[in-house]
Amino acid sequence: MTESRTLAEIAEIVDGAVRGDTAVRIDRAASISDATPSSITWISHARYTAQVASSRAGAILAPEDYGPTPMPAILCASLDVAIGKVINLFAPQPPAPAVGIHPTAVVASDSEVADTAAVGPFVVIESGACIEARTILHAGVHIGQDARVGADCRLWNHVVVRERCSLGDRVIIHPSAVIGSDGYGYYRADGRHHKIAHGGTVTIGDDVEIGAGACVDRAKMGCTLIGAGCKIDNLVQVGHNARVGENCLLVAHAAMAGSSTLEDHAILAGHAGVSDHCVVGGGAIGLAHAGIAHDIPPGAVVSGAPATDHKQRLRGVAAAKKIPELIQRVKRLDERVKRLESTEDDL
Amino acid sequence: MTESRTLAEIAEIVDGAVRGDTAVRIDRAASISDATPSSITWISHARYTAQVASSRAGAILAPEDYGPTPMPAILCASLDVAIGKVINLFAPQPPAPAVGIHPTAVVASDSEVADTAAVGPFVVIESGACIEARTILHAGVHIGQDARVGADCRLWNHVVVRERCSLGDRVIIHPSAVIGSDGYGYYRADGRHHKIAHGGTVTIGDDVEIGAGACVDRAKMGCTLIGAGCKIDNLVQVGHNARVGENCLLVAHAAMAGSSTLEDHAILAGHAGVSDHCVVGGGAIGLAHAGIAHDIPPGAVVSGAPATDHKQRLRGVAAAKKIPELIQRVKRLDERVKRLESTEDDL
Amino acid sequence: MTESRTLAEIAEIVDGAVRGDTAVRIDRAASISDATPSSITWISHARYTAQVASSRAGAILAPEDYGPTPMPAILCASLDVAIGKVINLFAPQPPAPAVGIHPTAVVASDSEVADTAAVGPFVVIESGACIEARTILHAGVHIGQDARVGADCRLWNHVVVRERCSLGDRVIIHPSAVIGSDGYGYYRADGRHHKIAHGGTVTIGDDVEIGAGACVDRAKMGCTLIGAGCKIDNLVQVGHNARVGENCLLVAHAAMAGSSTLEDHAILAGHAGVSDHCVVGGGAIGLAHAGIAHDIPPGAVVSGAPATDHKQRLRGVAAAKKIPELIQRVKRLDERVKRLESTEDDL
Repeated sequence: MTESRTLAEIAEIVDGAVRGDTAVRIDRAASISDATPSSITWISHARYTAQVASSRAGAILAPEDYGPTPMPAILCASLDVAIGKVINLFAPQPPAPAVGIHPTAVVASDSEVADTAAVGPFVVIESGACIEARTILHAGVHIGQDARVGADCRLWNHVVVRERCSLGDRVIIHPSAVIGSDGYGYYRADGRHHKIAHGGTVTIGDDVEIGAGACVDRAKMGCTLIGAGCKIDNLVQVGHNARVGENCLLVAHAAMAGSSTLEDHAILAGHAGVSDHCVVGGGAIGLAHAGIAHDIPPGAVVSGAPATDHKQRLRGVAAAKKIPELIQRVKRLDERVKRLESTEDDL
Repeated sequence: MTESRTLAEIAEIVDGAVRGDTAVRIDRAASISDATPSSITWISHARYTAQVASSRAGAILAPEDYGPTPMPAILCASLDVAIGKVINLFAPQPPAPAVGIHPTAVVASDSEVADTAAVGPFVVIESGACIEARTILHAGVHIGQDARVGADCRLWNHVVVRERCSLGDRVIIHPSAVIGSDGYGYYRADGRHHKIAHGGTVTIGDDVEIGAGACVDRAKMGCTLIGAGCKIDNLVQVGHNARVGENCLLVAHAAMAGSSTLEDHAILAGHAGVSDHCVVGGGAIGLAHAGIAHDIPPGAVVSGAPATDHKQRLRGVAAAKKIPELIQRVKRLDERVKRLESTEDDL
Repeated sequence: MTESRTLAEIAEIVDGAVRGDTAVRIDRAASISDATPSSITWISHARYTAQVASSRAGAILAPEDYGPTPMPAILCASLDVAIGKVINLFAPQPPAPAVGIHPTAVVASDSEVADTAAVGPFVVIESGACIEARTILHAGVHIGQDARVGADCRLWNHVVVRERCSLGDRVIIHPSAVIGSDGYGYYRADGRHHKIAHGGTVTIGDDVEIGAGACVDRAKMGCTLIGAGCKIDNLVQVGHNARVGENCLLVAHAAMAGSSTLEDHAILAGHAGVSDHCVVGGGAIGLAHAGIAHDIPPGAVVSGAPATDHKQRLRGVAAAKKIPELIQRVKRLDERVKRLESTEDDL
């Protein structure tokens, strides 16, 4: 169990103001329906505001101008930030293998593994690889020749980092993700596809998180780049020589084709894809299932495949519903005009 | 090889009626084109009915009112059920590691592994984990701290079940699937995304099957729920705190975002996705590539992104094809009206 | 480092003609912006032609009729082929475990592993399996009972090949891909889905490449077929009993449902899917996010879900944009006709 905190202490951590008893002790963060009297909860989504009255929570995080609540509240200028911080405050630490190298691990004698690193069972670290301070490699991780994993990283089970790839500090990679697999590149001759070697690498910046089963292919030459602060969800595909700027978000099943670019703070929602060589501008958003086949300007919001401006596309979809009525209307007009024409003939 | 059965025996198992020689012996189930004289086959799909005449099958499963066949038939009220049962009857058992713990496995002394469980090479079972009777863990499986795997489960190679997650009985998980990875949750501050801890778990009901490479994220708090009888295909993503009701189907590459809900018997077809906090009603269907961004009522069938009623959407698509002709028609009307107007002027 | 070559030597390998100094020595292939004086580069994409003038490359591959370049050039009739060959010429060889069986591997005594094969740490090879000459199994690979892996194959870390599946020669499979998992097949009875056994196998032809995390399900009966020369990208799903012809391309996140067919040279782009029992004709293309729900004739190019002819669909999308204007036009026509009608009444 995590230790308990007073509301006053929590308010300081989340940068909010207590309304009510500052001495209430909290030892848990919980959703509004699961909260107990020693839990703190929050107003996260409009769907759940009706549940505040009946919640058993000992305290609640709310926006600054929020009305009365049945339990003490911490009013926060940045509610989302406060919720995140309070969840982190009470969350259990995930387990890790013991510091040192598990006896079953196969570690090349000319690799460098920091004394403070934790290397689990059945891990393989190849020749020339480097694992920096306090990094955790869970069971079954494979680090290829001359690869580098920075400090304070955590690579979950069965993650593969192939030869010469480089990870920054505080990188988290979830199980079975693959960093540095060969890109999908062929040349066509004699009616067949011939493999093009991928001698390049992958470079991943600091504070990147990569989801379970995600794949980042190595470059043909040079390197595939994942900028600092990017958060990549499960089962995302990043193709060879792609360049992902800083603080981008790639949601589950998103895909970037070879040599495509996301500029800083761009977002690909679930199942969105970017074609090869296309550039998605800074802060632009490809909505769910967008198939981005052309460059997208910074800040744009696109959807559809091929992707176009989202609002315009929605208007098109809405307009399409009016077509059957429009056809009827034109038919009636035609009849009226016909009648007028025949009248004219009579004149 | 499996032992042979008479048609009479098979008819009893599949709840059908033999038409023809009940003593014919069958030792194999096979598709209509691969069937040999000791095989039983079936009319599975309208595409293949023409092949009945030329099939070498020794017997055939057919609907109750099916016309004459060149080989003995078992007529079945529920043909699909009969086909499934007859395939299962003759299918080879998949291999498994020997009962007991393989000498290379790393099993915590304070875990509980049933005597009848089979634990393969390079399996890791962490402290406090519990593996119940007759469960099979193939080579390379990882079971985290305090996780529980019920009885008669089969976890194929490299499956990861992270700490504190719980699986019911008769659960099957295919290679490289990941249960209990951190959800994709961040709070934004100082222009960056900050990780929110995922201290919750995953609870998987009885008789669930999860495909290769599929991912089920753990909850932030509380648990991500997969109801009994759900069948989840390869490479499906289930986000943190999602709630999947009983007997749902999630086809390959389907995705549920954080805190989304599928009610009982709902279906997500391939590449379909549900946005966070959305509820898909009982028995509703998201067709292939549907992007469900709003709640869907029970029994609805939706497609498109954003997803709307499928039939209405198809009508819109069909109507859009008529627009070019409609434009021509309006143009001609315009000319006719112009002519009428000029005639009028002449009067 | 790879050894250097003269332009004359390179020209012979790539089947091109040198323009300029044939004695220039090259030891590296590089993109136009990364090239150094000992590098050869190329005009790959119209986006990058402007960079030729400022490139530091020692030589450049260009189309046969290409204008003057600041560095010596090799003019090539098939530029893409030449680029592929020159990249391969200078690419580093990927690392591999030592020839022989790593002491930590678990290899059944009745399996057959060629003396020239390389079997890495923690590999498992089950009873009756066969690994042919010069094949490389990286750490953590699992080869099931009676499976066969041909000669000169390379299976990267954690690849699983389940029992009785068969791979041809020169097959490359990237990390965590799964060959031969059970298909997604159930029969419905008593309101629940019941598993149908998948006793079939997977057969993969020569020269196939399969991406990281991709899944190829085994057949119910018979086998799932991947034809020679197919190139399958990361995270692709191939369902049970699917038949993929020769030299097909399946791009990331593409999916083939059970019993679907791709004929030779067909292409599924990213996120494209084919419904069960559908046939995609030879050389046909399903564009990104296509949901192919009907048979597609050879050579067709389709998009959308459900997929239809791409050009026609784009015309529909373009036409939909004209609807708001069309509605206005019809409204004005209506008013004009009304006026004419009232004039007529006046007569």
